[in-house]
Amino acid sequence: MPSRFQWAIDKVHPNRANGAMTKAYRVAVVGATGLVGGEMIQVLEERGFPVSELLPLASVKSLGSVVHFQDKDVDVQVARPEAFENVDIALFSAGGALSKELAPEAAKRGAIVIDNSSAWRMDPEVPLVVPEVNAKAIAGYKTKNIIANPNCSTIQMVVALAPLHAKAGLNRVTVSTYQAVSGAGREAMDELREQVGLLFRGEDIEPAIFPHPIAFNAIPRIDVPSDDGYTKEEWKMVFETRKIMDLPELAITPTCVRVPVFNGHAESVIAEFDAPISLTEAREALKNGPGLFVQDEIENDVYPTQLEVNGSDATCVGRIRPALGFDNGLAFWCVADNLRKGAASNAVQIAEVLVRDHL
Amino acid sequence: MPSRFQWAIDKVHPNRANGAMTKAYRVAVVGATGLVGGEMIQVLEERGFPVSELLPLASVKSLGSVVHFQDKDVDVQVARPEAFENVDIALFSAGGALSKELAPEAAKRGAIVIDNSSAWRMDPEVPLVVPEVNAKAIAGYKTKNIIANPNCSTIQMVVALAPLHAKAGLNRVTVSTYQAVSGAGREAMDELREQVGLLFRGEDIEPAIFPHPIAFNAIPRIDVPSDDGYTKEEWKMVFETRKIMDLPELAITPTCVRVPVFNGHAESVIAEFDAPISLTEAREALKNGPGLFVQDEIENDVYPTQLEVNGSDATCVGRIRPALGFDNGLAFWCVADNLRKGAASNAVQIAEVLVRDHL
Repeated sequence: MPSRFQWAIDKVHPNRANGAMTKAYRVAVVGATGLVGGEMIQVLEERGFPVSELLPLASVKSLGSVVHFQDKDVDVQVARPEAFENVDIALFSAGGALSKELAPEAAKRGAIVIDNSSAWRMDPEVPLVVPEVNAKAIAGYKTKNIIANPNCSTIQMVVALAPLHAKAGLNRVTVSTYQAVSGAGREAMDELREQVGLLFRGEDIEPAIFPHPIAFNAIPRIDVPSDDGYTKEEWKMVFETRKIMDLPELAITPTCVRVPVFNGHAESVIAEFDAPISLTEAREALKNGPGLFVQDEIENDVYPTQLEVNGSDATCVGRIRPALGFDNGLAFWCVADNLRKGAASNAVQIAEVLVRDHL
Repeated sequence: MPSRFQWAIDKVHPNRANGAMTKAYRVAVVGATGLVGGEMIQVLEERGFPVSELLPLASVKSLGSVVHFQDKDVDVQVARPEAFENVDIALFSAGGALSKELAPEAAKRGAIVIDNSSAWRMDPEVPLVVPEVNAKAIAGYKTKNIIANPNCSTIQMVVALAPLHAKAGLNRVTVSTYQAVSGAGREAMDELREQVGLLFRGEDIEPAIFPHPIAFNAIPRIDVPSDDGYTKEEWKMVFETRKIMDLPELAITPTCVRVPVFNGHAESVIAEFDAPISLTEAREALKNGPGLFVQDEIENDVYPTQLEVNGSDATCVGRIRPALGFDNGLAFWCVADNLRKGAASNAVQIAEVLVRDHL
């Protein structure tokens, strides 16, 4: 983790060394051998989450695998209903279909599920949480024993928008994303790597994970398209942002684009507000915003980039400026590690607030 | 050139085989050994421009080089004032400083300069031309004998916006770009290639052309920053679009971003109009728009991508949809080959209109 982000990371560790967490918990990680699952286990350790026992769970084909946690190798077990007996917290990152089936089984057995798939996000009985924005919503977990972790591209955007909204009242958002291939899993990262080699050797590319070549290219389609011309990824940004920010009517126009970056999402955002907000006020709000790290001196080439934000839990913001031709409009550039803040770290932060305030 | 674009390319060859060009011209290309200069020479040949003699010009350090034109090797000569004696048309792509100095020398000697640098674009006595949009402005070349070729990111955007503006009256544009490294020259392409190798071998990167690593990264700063937080590249998109479209008050908020793509620029555009414009009307206008090629069936993964548009002279548009939350707003994705339509081909198209209508 680059030291330049230590300050930002400390800011987003609300529970670190606060002495409140003397109890420890049995924590299951479902999808433990996947990209996000692996990151969850690493983040649990890095952030010192009070784990009395870690249960890495995955599908049958991962039997025999081990994961490394707190200097020990831990055997991966099969993710099945009985595995959740006596589990306190279950972090799920194993796809929507499995979550739909297995999360209620875990919840029924008393585990509180924090689910990274899209399966439960829009369920009105399930809180959808970014701790910096709506930590209080976690209290609603009791209805189903499930808390949903939002989509990666939504998380970093709402972390940046929340303090600006508090200041001036958000009324419309236009966003174009520059999303890394890691969001599509390990095979997608392999596909980018392989295609780069093929192109350099002048050989033919046959895309498998992505519908077009992703090496040295950009693909303006993430997740499945809807009939209305928007993709599911884009609708996630609309509906999840509205739910997390409790702004059910908020206008959002997203364009979600995959770029040939291994890890780290960037977003070009235009935010419009009800009230005027000066550049100074906006910078102050962002600097003081939880989970945020402002890197904004374009004259010195200081702005966040995806490669450099890798490994950080912060949402980094730069290129803050008035949106030309908009009343009360701001433009900015927002970058985060999609596997960490966009997935694993946000889930662990939810668990931190859960044990601090509710268990 | 991929055959799938032949239709689009034919559409943007207004002069091909029209029999009007029996005369031939002495054509100089300044910066003949550069990326865009080389492309200009290739495009002159491909589009059958009536060249009686080609004069490739460059700096002293290119002396001894040859360029290939119409199955002949042609010696590169030094770009100096006397070289323009008896030249009819001089295509310049050798940077702003040289254009400022040498274009008036060429013009004084009777050559009509078509300049690809930013030196003359905003001069009120110099027409700034995208033939599909404002071919008539070429008539204004007589004042200074100079015509300016716009910035790459501007050209493809105005080609797409013009037919929509004609239909519904454009009043605001928000654009985020995904720009290829070729726009920064051959050394920038080398830097991307080298950094990819270094990263794969786990070696350190020391950026030289770009301020941050560009391999597997995106850099939200193109050209020099202004005091107001916008970059020169972004201001080019504002001022040049206004001049070409003759909309001096048009509101434009650009965010210009370099992505790890070798060649081809993409743009995520939100356009707002005075009058309502249906999706059907917008698609029709774009399909019939000069220089445009609509690829818009997201359900079949049909949309333009940079790698696949390489080599085409068309501006390709997809992801056409209503901009959520905007009255009379449209969102679309627009891709073009920045070395061709964004530079060389647009300059040659200007020359084609010039000889057809004015010489």
